[in-house]
Amino acid sequence: MKKIFVIGAGLSSSSMLRYFLQNSEKENWLIRVCDQDGDKAAKKVSNYKNAEGFALDALDPESREEHIVWADLVVSMLPARFHIEIAKDCIKFKTNLITPSYISDEMKALHKAAEEAGIIIMNEIGVDPGLDHMSAKKVLDEIEAKGGKMHIFESFTGGLVAPESDNNPWNYKFTWNPRNVVLAGQGGAAKFIQEGKYKYIPYNKLFRRTEIIHIDDYGYFEGYANRDSLKYREIYSLDNIPTIFRGTLRRKGFSRSWDALVQIGATDDTYILEGSKDMSKRDFINSFLPYNPTDSVELKLKHYLKLDQDDPLFDKLCWLGIFEDKKYQLKADITPAKFLQMILEDKWQLEPNDKDMIVMWHKFVYKLDGKVHEINSHMIAIGEDQTYTGMSNTVGIPLAICSKLILNGSIKLKGVQLPIYPEVYGPILNELETFGIRFIEKEIANPVVYAEMT
Amino acid sequence: MKKIFVIGAGLSSSSMLRYFLQNSEKENWLIRVCDQDGDKAAKKVSNYKNAEGFALDALDPESREEHIVWADLVVSMLPARFHIEIAKDCIKFKTNLITPSYISDEMKALHKAAEEAGIIIMNEIGVDPGLDHMSAKKVLDEIEAKGGKMHIFESFTGGLVAPESDNNPWNYKFTWNPRNVVLAGQGGAAKFIQEGKYKYIPYNKLFRRTEIIHIDDYGYFEGYANRDSLKYREIYSLDNIPTIFRGTLRRKGFSRSWDALVQIGATDDTYILEGSKDMSKRDFINSFLPYNPTDSVELKLKHYLKLDQDDPLFDKLCWLGIFEDKKYQLKADITPAKFLQMILEDKWQLEPNDKDMIVMWHKFVYKLDGKVHEINSHMIAIGEDQTYTGMSNTVGIPLAICSKLILNGSIKLKGVQLPIYPEVYGPILNELETFGIRFIEKEIANPVVYAEMT
Repeated sequence: MKKIFVIGAGLSSSSMLRYFLQNSEKENWLIRVCDQDGDKAAKKVSNYKNAEGFALDALDPESREEHIVWADLVVSMLPARFHIEIAKDCIKFKTNLITPSYISDEMKALHKAAEEAGIIIMNEIGVDPGLDHMSAKKVLDEIEAKGGKMHIFESFTGGLVAPESDNNPWNYKFTWNPRNVVLAGQGGAAKFIQEGKYKYIPYNKLFRRTEIIHIDDYGYFEGYANRDSLKYREIYSLDNIPTIFRGTLRRKGFSRSWDALVQIGATDDTYILEGSKDMSKRDFINSFLPYNPTDSVELKLKHYLKLDQDDPLFDKLCWLGIFEDKKYQLKADITPAKFLQMILEDKWQLEPNDKDMIVMWHKFVYKLDGKVHEINSHMIAIGEDQTYTGMSNTVGIPLAICSKLILNGSIKLKGVQLPIYPEVYGPILNELETFGIRFIEKEIANPVVYAEMT
Repeated sequence: MKKIFVIGAGLSSSSMLRYFLQNSEKENWLIRVCDQDGDKAAKKVSNYKNAEGFALDALDPESREEHIVWADLVVSMLPARFHIEIAKDCIKFKTNLITPSYISDEMKALHKAAEEAGIIIMNEIGVDPGLDHMSAKKVLDEIEAKGGKMHIFESFTGGLVAPESDNNPWNYKFTWNPRNVVLAGQGGAAKFIQEGKYKYIPYNKLFRRTEIIHIDDYGYFEGYANRDSLKYREIYSLDNIPTIFRGTLRRKGFSRSWDALVQIGATDDTYILEGSKDMSKRDFINSFLPYNPTDSVELKLKHYLKLDQDDPLFDKLCWLGIFEDKKYQLKADITPAKFLQMILEDKWQLEPNDKDMIVMWHKFVYKLDGKVHEINSHMIAIGEDQTYTGMSNTVGIPLAICSKLILNGSIKLKGVQLPIYPEVYGPILNELETFGIRFIEKEIANPVVYAEMT
């Protein structure tokens, strides 16, 4: 029997654990699931005889050792910074490892040691990163096999709310970590390359440089640039591609409104807002506006943002309740970003029956036999409920399938890896279709041809 | 004889050294001046028998020890971060110390030890910080003595170009460290308090929230907020003042144009601009603008900044040469801020006969016997040449006078201090007038009265 040791039984593990458990007898798996909360781990596996769940402090080397020695494969769902210590143990005890997180430089440095230990350490095998690599690399490899020469690669992913639950003027709700949404795009200019020219977008312009995207049956979305698109040239073997751009999807119109909050400084997380403990939402907004003894906060904000009297952006801001005199019961002053997060959490929370939606979209433009071709590829994953969400399914199922492929010997790669090879992405993408996670590729009839390409 | 040990003979020491040397016989001073460049130190003192100049690595504790033991007063013109080690030596050897730099928390912590050693460590005794404290505290103390209650305190300082040398459309040239000018305002939101409300301005709005100031005979200036005005409430004993605001002065119109460079991201110093080594000025600007195969960089910039076709802001940008195809011979990629600095240094350098100008302006609004009063105070210091600049004079002469007052026993304060007491600022401001560094205070006839004050 093959033995799987899963570290972490939280929300993001739900869909993966379901796959493991439902396939445990058929695949002859023995499964151990640990969590800091032992009850949670035990409850998840309670109906399955091949599985046990228990409390464990996986950050303690001694506690985890026996399980890593026991297992054929470790799945680490810990926060990304903790994977590296697990990886070192896995090398020591020659146990395979899989994580959904971005590969770190420290992790990369273990490649040779992992190869010598005869194990694979698979990283970035969730949705983004993960499905983005797999679905893109599949098309890129097909284009290369035909002899096509890539000219433009664009890729966007977004965690949104499902159309049936989409009932607010922002067309947005928090379906994942709210803090990450508030801080999105901060920490440095976005970088990409377009027609051979390096392009940089500072945070204060990021949400005004969106690209509009249309997906059949789902309508319009917009994408803003991710921080670093350049590094994907190396990952995807696209070193000399003239245009590469990766971004985050929102529903059309979101970014222009969000930018209003960016412009006034409400998303800043770098300082404590003095007096914020006793501020109402209205006081909070007013703290970013010029003083005037008589003018309203509403008019000052309209003027500051140069909004027309009837700009619908303003209605969206009003809907958030930012002009209400409501105070929070705060014990201490907090940053603007944290204050804004509270305001948004009042409005953007999911209702009990709401579902999330993961949207991914790629654009490939290439030249073949003197002709320009364009392929678009997209995937929509709508959550089943608030346990088996679109996010949980698209993170967890690829991870679980990949685990199976490692355990049954289909994946023979060793060392520190990403899911960019056909032996990995091929069977995973195929099996994902049986779960309704399907990329729809279409050839665009009359692609736009840039002067540089002809 | 009293013994002075000056660490640092650079440009910023010029006016101070001149004062020390010219008064050395009359005051019975023996002066030692050290610098890493021994020739420079020797040359500065060559005509004076009471002085010697020599090479010394003042960062080396053993090298400096004998001079600190020898001296009655040490003047440290080192970069601010090095003062703390000198201060510890001065406490050990019971030698007074004076520096023009901002007091650090580490320095503050030495207060008791300095008192016990019977010495004074005087900080922030240049122009800004320095003259700002002294000239403001003089008026504030007078208002308090009359029984007035402060309502508004505003204070602005700027390092500009003298009117006779002011011959470019930006009304600005580099009269001090260019890098600090490019990075001005970065690193966190500006904070102040206005009519009892905390106010915060993010960097992307900083140069659009200016206050216009008029100074008789010198015309219009504008001020943008300094990073932290709030801490001055404590320093000036203005704990409950409803409005306190400190800022930096430029000539009117500068900030709006500067903001154009901020908005596109050209002042960012947080990342290396890939490919910048081979960029022309035009390429540099284009790297912040959307790609288009045919549109000009000029039109793209106008559109990005929403500038009218005939906006004079655009003429100022053109004058900087930002659309020129000129390349720099760079060995490596650099940050946007450093690239912009090169562009600006081509245009904003001082001509050999240009003079600088230091401008300081304060506004005091207070209530006395039920009536609102306003006093404005300003000082203009124009440089003599490019050695005895306005900056060097306003930094160095207060520092030298304060040294004299410490050595002759007029200042009896001990411990770690700022120049905020009458025994310090009184004689310094008086003597400064003999050098033409004079604050002109005027009562404003009909001050604006805020509702909250009546």
